Amino acid sequence: MSRPAFDLGVYLVTDRPALLGRELLDVVGLAVAGGATMVQLREKTAATREFVELARAVLGVTRPRGVPLLINDRVDVALAAGADGVHVGQDDMHPADVRALLGAKAIIGLSVTGEDEARAARGMPVDYLGAGPVFATATKKDAGAPQGLPGLAAMLALSEVPVVAIGAIKEGNAREVMETGVAGVAVVSAICSATDPREAAVQLRHIVEAGRKR
Amino acid sequence: MSRPAFDLGVYLVTDRPALLGRELLDVVGLAVAGGATMVQLREKTAATREFVELARAVLGVTRPRGVPLLINDRVDVALAAGADGVHVGQDDMHPADVRALLGAKAIIGLSVTGEDEARAARGMPVDYLGAGPVFATATKKDAGAPQGLPGLAAMLALSEVPVVAIGAIKEGNAREVMETGVAGVAVVSAICSATDPREAAVQLRHIVEAGRKR
Repeated sequence: MSRPAFDLGVYLVTDRPALLGRELLDVVGLAVAGGATMVQLREKTAATREFVELARAVLGVTRPRGVPLLINDRVDVALAAGADGVHVGQDDMHPADVRALLGAKAIIGLSVTGEDEARAARGMPVDYLGAGPVFATATKKDAGAPQGLPGLAAMLALSEVPVVAIGAIKEGNAREVMETGVAGVAVVSAICSATDPREAAVQLRHIVEAGRKR
Repeated sequence: MSRPAFDLGVYLVTDRPALLGRELLDVVGLAVAGGATMVQLREKTAATREFVELARAVLGVTRPRGVPLLINDRVDVALAAGADGVHVGQDDMHPADVRALLGAKAIIGLSVTGEDEARAARGMPVDYLGAGPVFATATKKDAGAPQGLPGLAAMLALSEVPVVAIGAIKEGNAREVMETGVAGVAVVSAICSATDPREAAVQLRHIVEAGRKR
């Protein structure tokens, strides 16, 4: 496997309802300008054609900056748009099937919501785990119970691959999240709903880089 | 292009809510035993992993009988399950993208709901059109206005590829539908909700074969 290098540091997960009426492309552009290191395009209501068109448009923003774009759940959309990978949840396509379809160069992430899922992920052909929710979140309605920092640390200890934390992470709590040893923070509202998405990304990136130096 | 031969004659489109509580696999099995010539697996609520597993299970029923299985909308599911093709609507992935992902041997169908869409489909890399709704239907909530038999004939006249008619087609009206010259009838409720799905397929196949002899 010869996957491209990627940086989970400040991982923006998009959510159109959280954009406060702003355009997705604009907010993603501000986020990567501010220092977001990865982007996951998550669309739960778009029709497939719209999802593909959106993914192509977002790639026009992320690729020039060398920021990987992953697609949530939809391998078909990733293939059609030429995205850098796919992030799947436990009910999405099995990572082994995703890897078979996307090949060795794709970045594949898997959500885990507790120790059992983190344990089950061992040996799966994934490049990172998205572990959470760390704190209680209103963005993702089907998210499980908050795992807290101890739960996050437990999932991290079980993982064979880098872990990005997710679940109501923001500027005010990112430092303590990084102290667990995770590779980065995945955020939705902290950037999508920020008054200044660029500045929010700048601040998160600063906290993440400082956290890594420990 | 060297597509496998396929027969649009009696084309079962699945709909789990229409199954009257019966198992999808059982109804598909009865339909192909009775003479359904193609099956399209349509799932609008299943998570991706469940959809893939279902597609694999249905292939276990259709493939031994040489009946092609197409997946509605989801190229990723078709690829993961190894289905015979994909059927897309106007809001699903563009047929050119579908063809690029599935290759020359896949069967690709496109829904058209009027003359404009039938005209626009000319030159697209599709193997057949699903034209309708012919009659008013309650199964597909987002179906457009009924086109009637004259509307169906107009779409057929514009098409460069075989046409299968869809939209509230059943034993009682299949003969007049076949008289327009279409290659077959696509049905949901007429088989899924039939008291005896096998016998329903037998009767539809009989009408279709007789209609072809004209």
